[in-house]
Parts: sequence; structure tokens; C-alpha cells
Amino acid sequence: MTDPSAVCDRLDRLRIKMKNLGVYAYYIPTSDFHLSEYINDHFKVREFFSGFTGSAGDLLVMQDKALLWTDGRYFIQAERELQGTGISLMRSGEDGVDTLEVYLKKTLPEDATLGFDGRTVSVSKAERLKKAVPSHGLKYKKDLSEGIFVRPPLPRSAVEVLQEDVTGQPSTDKIAALRQELEKSGSDAIFLTDLEEIAYLFNIRADDIRHTPVPMSYAYITREKAYIFLSDEKADTGYPASIVRSYDEIYDFLKSRRVSGTVFIDKDSLNYRCFRLIKKRARIVCGMSPVKLMKAVKNSVELSHIKEIFRKDSIALTRFIRWITKADDPGTEISAARKLLEFREKIPEFRDLSFETISAYADNAAIIHYQPSEEHDRAIEKKGLYLTDSGGQYLGGTTDVTRTIVMGDLSEEEKEAYTLAACGMLRIRYAKFKKGTTGASLDILARERMWKKGMDYRHGTGHGVGYMLGVHEGPQSISQRIIGKPAELLPGMLVSDEPGIYREDRFGVRIEDILYVKEDQKTEDGLFFCFEDLTKVPIDDRGIDQNLMSSEEKEMYEKYRMEVIDALAPDLDREELEWLYQYSGLTAPKN
Amino acid sequence: MTDPSAVCDRLDRLRIKMKNLGVYAYYIPTSDFHLSEYINDHFKVREFFSGFTGSAGDLLVMQDKALLWTDGRYFIQAERELQGTGISLMRSGEDGVDTLEVYLKKTLPEDATLGFDGRTVSVSKAERLKKAVPSHGLKYKKDLSEGIFVRPPLPRSAVEVLQEDVTGQPSTDKIAALRQELEKSGSDAIFLTDLEEIAYLFNIRADDIRHTPVPMSYAYITREKAYIFLSDEKADTGYPASIVRSYDEIYDFLKSRRVSGTVFIDKDSLNYRCFRLIKKRARIVCGMSPVKLMKAVKNSVELSHIKEIFRKDSIALTRFIRWITKADDPGTEISAARKLLEFREKIPEFRDLSFETISAYADNAAIIHYQPSEEHDRAIEKKGLYLTDSGGQYLGGTTDVTRTIVMGDLSEEEKEAYTLAACGMLRIRYAKFKKGTTGASLDILARERMWKKGMDYRHGTGHGVGYMLGVHEGPQSISQRIIGKPAELLPGMLVSDEPGIYREDRFGVRIEDILYVKEDQKTEDGLFFCFEDLTKVPIDDRGIDQNLMSSEEKEMYEKYRMEVIDALAPDLDREELEWLYQYSGLTAPKN
Repeated sequence: MTDPSAVCDRLDRLRIKMKNLGVYAYYIPTSDFHLSEYINDHFKVREFFSGFTGSAGDLLVMQDKALLWTDGRYFIQAERELQGTGISLMRSGEDGVDTLEVYLKKTLPEDATLGFDGRTVSVSKAERLKKAVPSHGLKYKKDLSEGIFVRPPLPRSAVEVLQEDVTGQPSTDKIAALRQELEKSGSDAIFLTDLEEIAYLFNIRADDIRHTPVPMSYAYITREKAYIFLSDEKADTGYPASIVRSYDEIYDFLKSRRVSGTVFIDKDSLNYRCFRLIKKRARIVCGMSPVKLMKAVKNSVELSHIKEIFRKDSIALTRFIRWITKADDPGTEISAARKLLEFREKIPEFRDLSFETISAYADNAAIIHYQPSEEHDRAIEKKGLYLTDSGGQYLGGTTDVTRTIVMGDLSEEEKEAYTLAACGMLRIRYAKFKKGTTGASLDILARERMWKKGMDYRHGTGHGVGYMLGVHEGPQSISQRIIGKPAELLPGMLVSDEPGIYREDRFGVRIEDILYVKEDQKTEDGLFFCFEDLTKVPIDDRGIDQNLMSSEEKEMYEKYRMEVIDALAPDLDREELEWLYQYSGLTAPKN
Repeated sequence: MTDPSAVCDRLDRLRIKMKNLGVYAYYIPTSDFHLSEYINDHFKVREFFSGFTGSAGDLLVMQDKALLWTDGRYFIQAERELQGTGISLMRSGEDGVDTLEVYLKKTLPEDATLGFDGRTVSVSKAERLKKAVPSHGLKYKKDLSEGIFVRPPLPRSAVEVLQEDVTGQPSTDKIAALRQELEKSGSDAIFLTDLEEIAYLFNIRADDIRHTPVPMSYAYITREKAYIFLSDEKADTGYPASIVRSYDEIYDFLKSRRVSGTVFIDKDSLNYRCFRLIKKRARIVCGMSPVKLMKAVKNSVELSHIKEIFRKDSIALTRFIRWITKADDPGTEISAARKLLEFREKIPEFRDLSFETISAYADNAAIIHYQPSEEHDRAIEKKGLYLTDSGGQYLGGTTDVTRTIVMGDLSEEEKEAYTLAACGMLRIRYAKFKKGTTGASLDILARERMWKKGMDYRHGTGHGVGYMLGVHEGPQSISQRIIGKPAELLPGMLVSDEPGIYREDRFGVRIEDILYVKEDQKTEDGLFFCFEDLTKVPIDDRGIDQNLMSSEEKEMYEKYRMEVIDALAPDLDREELEWLYQYSGLTAPKN
């Protein structure tokens, strides 16, 4: 944890610059120049000025105060990390807590100027900020952290080109399909800034962001040409006709004559600084980037790799569960995470984790995105619940899975929470839905039973999952909190299914599978879809109280247990299989 | 049914006018000048030019063809009524069927002009049309039906003022609350055109639209003044300080200096012609009319009247059900509807139906909004299913209820459909939900079981219900089809709960209760709401196959049956009560 007095000192230096430049309030989001979810250390400005290490948060600094907005996943962690910094926590989504924009509207005096680094704020966000600032006074061209925050160098890892046996579609085809979409929207070109979209489109990967195998890049695709801006300008790309430029040239390029006509942009992934440059030279068409949807719908080659990788990943996690439930000393949160990594590392295709492992024992699991640190590492005891949420980056897929493991005796409250989380997961898993349904509609299936008891979890039920890309992707999700038009669930899309129950200072439960959408049946009432489960990891039967389940849920649970056993059995030895039956609460067949 | 040749003749005359005026396509919505749901005969232009009598539909007339868009409720009826008119049916919401706007975009040649009567099209719709027409060529000032469609005179019924014991809130308070909302939005005035909003705000009622007790009116509320435009300009209004003008003066008023400053308008209820006039003189603030939300949240006086009226209405329907299930000759669809009306007319507060009764036997019930006509009246036999969807306008409430009644032997298919519709209804009835939940989220609870079997219904699950006003009101609904931001369900709101199953040419089932939202409990996870049921009418147990229900649904069904019996018992005589037990599939307690 950063020393609070260091944070205070950094804020003081920032405030002097603000004063000199006439900036009333300075906004620091958690973002790189591409609005990526995970960011390279080069971009960790918000963490530097707040001491808060969570992956999401908005810092607003004024002369007399500073505020940090973050969401329910991080309330407990932020409370702790902000202590002594003088920064107030704004609990996003709670009753009576203003959003950043509402706060600015209420607080900023007439003619106050809001500053931010325009490279780190999306066009959508900047437009909302503009409306919130009384005189529309925005200063976005200057990075005020310069000279205070010494940035680690920009990452420049080697670019790797994926072949068609891995991607299922050459980038030539993907770019041709994109150009068709451009034509439909009446655009001459598209400016792509989302790193995963560019990696998908060109079938390239790299190692510039931890846990997300993408290169830092921009791309500008016209009807005839395809420019890509990479740190290694001599790099090969998956698209033979691509024109490769240096990553650092992008702002000069945007000022050049090459940018003209009608340019398609996605306001949610384009940064404001780039946008203002493009707007000077071209007509703008706004919309969700067509690449986002192309990328979300997996083709059959991708799906077959994904199935295989999830199977292997599931076996690794299952073996870990067997190990930890049988171990005389389960060790600590950190050593357990390391042990799980060892199981994964045995898989030849394994390359990296897909995110920092959440390894949380007892009340630590109530911190939704808790990560153990050396200073707060905790021994795992042989009682209560241990939660692990983890995943891998493999050649052939990106995984994500959560299991909560029963370490010993449970309270009634823990068992109820475990059962309700499992039921919620199963209700989504076995849902069937009409074509046109969005995840916003499905979400409630995971919560219906909880809500009857006044219980809930403060996060969405599910997110999309990339293919050898980010572990979170859109446009689909399973969540009632929708920004803009919710996305239809389409065959080939992956989605996580991860309800939980969290009890501050007591325990946390979450159970997460990754599902994909496929066709179910066509009837006189329409076309129906269903899910297939990629995750094949047992649920801990000692956490389940079947008395709390409806007859339908019991049937689902029964079916689920057998599906897991059937999937894992071929790869387990006799002892492992016997353990699996027992862990699943079933009796192994004799012979 | 209108003679198809008469329709052709009317279209021909319209086409000549179109040609003379250079109108390529003429758009005729189903609408009065207030975008009301039900319209007076004065406004039935679309019906006149198409022969289609459904309550919703958009007609587009071109020289060489004409198209009618309508939704799933009306596909079967429209198919029948359009026969021989040369008008093609566009099935809204079906795969591959373009919306009106998309059709215009695809079809209209460059520089084609689209015409419509600007008084009958909302601002939102007109703006969408504008985008869809290549050259933005709109002609909205002329009513091309003039001289072809002889309009019945504008209705001018007497205005009645409701007292506080009925409304629970004097209009003085309502207008003061509205002015606070205006202040919040930075507006100097609001122009109200929704007839129900105006009736609610001024606590007035009249009889200008069948089944909706409102006067034709406009209102313009400034921070100091309150203008109301009524057919009877000498009418009393519920607001002592109101300035009453004649309904016909509105366009002159909008051209006057009284319209100035910043005016709040609701683009969904304001017609385009008015909008263009206001825009000439004032700055515009757009949003959902604050009166819409005020009106939707019932106060305690309204709720207590509503409960009492629904109880009486439920007894009337229950007695009708007893009568029809015991009758040697149940008569026809029309005579049964009349019989039901007789039961309602015995209630002293009864004034009118709240909509045309749907009385549909056997396959007629598959037509979602079927209404029997003298020429298509059908005998109700002692087999299969009979569906009745009806409601009353009372002093003290507006009701709406659907029951499907078992007339004799049922097929397995009918029983399955009946059970699934009932389960869907019960799942919503007993749902509990966190504050902030919208009806868009709840909808799937009614469909989850159906979707597993590839079954669905092509309409929303529920709508808001007015208080002595329209039987359908917003902003809340229970539906996945959301236009704009879905509305949170708030304590005091009424909502219908009416899943169904429809089998073309075979049968139809729908079961509908009206619920209201109330607080359930506050826990560490948040504030939770639940529903209370206003409808107390038995479900026909002969339609239920409990083998198709989950244990949880069986519990709900059990609870529901007892709630209905407990509510009705005090008003039934011994024989009626015995019948009610039997009809509910229960044994009456001995004593």
C-alpha cells in the first residue's frame, strides 16, 4: 500500500500546477489512450495520485478536496486504501451518491475550468463532462501529471501473427467484412483505437498489457487501404496489404490529409484528443464499432479451440480443488493462488493468467475484487469458505472461472448463500430464450430467489469473454445496468454466469461458469436459443442445502453434476474420479 | 367490415390529391391530435382509408401500392380485413419486416415528398420520419383526408370536477408540484397535450373519448399562470386559478406572445404541428412530462378507492364465471359480453366499460385483441376455452382483468398452455425486486418456463393502469420492448400481469391480474419491493395440470387460491362460496 503521506504530497504538487493553469478541478480516470480495461503501468496515473489500487475508479482533484468514485466491487478496499489521504470515497450506484457529472454540475462555480488528459477520456465521457461543466470550460490538451508521475516506458513487445488454424478467418476476410459494414453506414473509413478490436482484425497478438495479449496500436481502415500503427513499425501483420506505421506517429497522421471524407468512430473507445483532430478534417459517423460485434461472435474454429482449452483449464482447477480440500495445510491466499497457477502451467498451451487471481478466504471474499497482497496475506483455515476467481490466457482461448470451496464447517447463513448463488448460476445456465433477448432480460433469473429473501449482489451477472484477448468483452452482458442499447445474445457469443452473495466482515460466495450461446429450436412461436457450458468444474456439494431448492432447481443441479462428471471422467484417474463423485455429493458407481 | 371496393375508391381519391400536391407517399397513423391510445370517431382516418378496425396501425399510401403496419395482436384480424383492398400487411416485429422508417429509407426516390397531417404525428415520430426521407421532404401542414373522409363532429361533453375525497390531492397541489419540476428542468412553462395528464392535473373528467373519461383539451402551465383549453370554455375546472380558453383557440394561442422563454415539451405526446409553432417563439426543453410520473404513482386515497372498486369488479366477474360455467346455454360471444356487463352494472359506481370487451371463444381467442362483431358472433359451446378480457370505468377506479374459462373437455395442449400462462402470471405476482428494477427486467419471469418449451406470446406482459383514466398508462410496463429509458417500478404504481399462449386456428389463453407495487423489506443488500394483487378472481382449476408446475409454483398457486377465496368469501352466499371452492379445485371446509 502506498504511504498516505506520499499521496498527499503528490496531490499538493498537482494542485500547484492546477492553480497556475487556472484549472479548478482536475479529472483523472483509470485509463490508457485506448480506454482499455486493464492498463499498462505507463498509464497508472489515477493509482499514483490516490493510492487506490483497484482496477476501476475516477479521481477528481480540487484545491480543497479530492474525491474518488468507484463501484460496489471496491467499496471495502477503497475505504482502506484511501485512509489518511484526505480523499473521500464516492460509492457509485448507492442511493444519494451523485455521479461525477452530477457532482460537477452541483459544485463547480460558474466559469470554473475542468482539466483532464484528453488522451485518457472517451468522446462519450468528454461530452458528458462538457454538459456538466457550467461554462463548458474544458482543458484537455495538457497532461498535468507530467513531471510529477514518472511514467514507466511505453511497452513495445514483439508482435505475433496468428494463423488461420487458430483464428478460423484470415484478416483479409475480416477487413473485407468490415468494409462492407462501412459501406452500409455510408463511411469512407473507420478509425479503430480499441486494442482488442485491432488485434482481432489483424489476427495479431503481443504482450504490451499484462494479462491481455495485445500490442499498443491504432488502425485506420479506408475502403482501399489499411493503416496500422505499431510500436515495432517493421513488424509483420496478419494482413498482407497493411501499411505499417509507428505507434508514435498517430497524432501527426490524424493531422494529415489522409484523414478525410466520412470517418466512422466509436465514441466509447475513441479518446477525445484524437476525436477533436479527426473532426477538424472529416465528417463523423458515430456508432458501435462493427468490429466489436464481429469479434464477439466466435466462429467454429475459435469455438472448437475454446472448448478444448476450457476442458483443460477445468481439469486444472478441479485438481487444485481436490488438492486444497485434502491438504493438511492449505497454506495462505497467495500460496494457494501459486499452487493453482502450477496446475495451469502444466497445460502446454498456457501462456499467462487472464487477470490477477482473486484468492480470498473467509471475510476477504466479501471484497468482490479482492487480491491478496504480501502484507495482507491470510492463512486459509479448515473452516468456512475460500473463493478463487481466476483464468488463463492460452494458445486457443481465454478462460475465467470462479469456485467457492468449503474448507470445513459452515454456518446456516453461509450454506444459504452458497445454495442461492449456485441456484442463480444454474438458472442462467439452463435458461432458454427467444431470439432478440438481451442479457438485460436474463439477469433477473439469477436474482429472483435471492430477492425473495432480500438478498442481492452488487455486480452484473455476466460479461462477454474474448478469444485469446481480454477476459471481459462486449457488446453482450448479463446485467440490468445497461448503457445505451443492450445487445442481443447471438449464437457463438460467450458470456460469464457468476452470481454471488457477499456479507461484509463475514464471507463471500461466487460461482462462475462461462457459457456460449447456441440454437435450441424453432417453433411456431419463433427461434429459441440456449446455452452450452464451457466450464466443467464441480460445485462443492457440502455448500448446498437442497431443502432451499425448488424441484426444478434440484433437477438442474442433478443434471449439472452429471454433466461435469461426464466431461471430466475421461481425464481423471480412478482416485480422482472417486473423489469427484464424493465432492459432488454423489456415490460412484461400483465396478 | 367495410366493403373492400369502398376502401379502394377512397384510396383512389386520396391518390389524386397526392398527385396534385406532389406528395409521393402519404402516411396515416392511428391518432387524434393528442396521440391518445383510443380515439374518437372524429379521428378515425386510418380506419376509413384501410378498412382495418384494429386499435393500432400505420397506413402508408403511394400511387402504386399501400401498406399497413400493425403488431402481433392484430396479424390475423388485419389479414382478414385487408382482403381485397390491395393493401399489403406489414407484420411489425417479425423477422425481415422493415419498420415504416426503414421502408421509407429503402423505397423513396431521392427528392420524394412524404405527407402527413402534422396534428396526428408526435414530434419523436416526425423526427424519425424526417431522417428516413432522403431529401427531408415533409409536408405536414395539410390534412389530405379533407373532403374524402367526412369527420363526425368533435366531441364536446360536459366537464366534471372531482373532489379531494376522490383524488386525494387538490389540483392546486399538483400544479405546485409540477412547477417545482419545471424549475428543476430550467423551464418557464410546460405545454401539455396528453388528455389524461391534463385530466389528472386539473382533477377533471368528461366523456369525449369512449371508455376514457377525459375532455378534449390542451394546457399551458407557466410559473404563474395555468391556461386550459376546453370545448366548453365556460366549464368549471378543478383549479380555481385556471384561465379557461376554447379548445379551438390553441393554434392561435401558440402563435401568440404568451408562448415565450423556455418551454418544456414531451416529444412523445406533443404533435408536430404544435411543436413547430412553439419552436418559433420559445426555447425548447425536451423530456418525459413530469405529470406522467406523478399520475402513475397513486396516492393513498386513490389506492383505497382502487382496492374497493377492484374488489367489487372481481365479485362481478366471479359471478359471471359461475353463471357461464353452470349455464345450460352459455349463448354467444356477444351475449356473454352483455351478461358480464349486466353483472358490472349492478355496482353503483359503474359508469362505462374501460375498453371494448374481448369475448372470444375457441380459436377466436388466438386473435389477441379479438372483438366479436354481429356478423362474426359465435356460439360458445360446452367444450374448450372461452377468454374474456374486460374492465370498467368506475367512480373510484379503472379496472382490467382477463380470465380464460374452461367450458368442457380440454386437450393436453390446451391444458399445458393454460398451466404455463397461469404459472407466468403467478411468477410475476409473487416476484420481489430491488429498488431500481424496471418492468423490462421482470418480464422474463413470466416467460422462462414457456421458452424452455419453445413457447411464447407476442405481446408485453403488463402495462400501467390509470385511475378513472385510460386503462393503459405509462411510464412503467412489464415488457422487454422498451423505447427510451425504461421506468423504475415505484410503490403506488399499478401494472397488469397478463401472460398468454395463442395457437392460431385452435385456441388462446390469457390470465390477467392488476397488481400494485409496495415496499417489501429493507436489508443490508438494499430496499426491496413486492406486488399486492388488486384482482380477486379465481383461476379455473380444470385448466391446471399441477404435474407441469415446479414445487415453488405449486406453492404460489396454493397461496393464490386461498387469497382469492379469503377476499371474496365475505360477499358470497353459501352456494356461491361452495362453488368457488370447487372451481378453485379445493374442498370447502365443513361446519
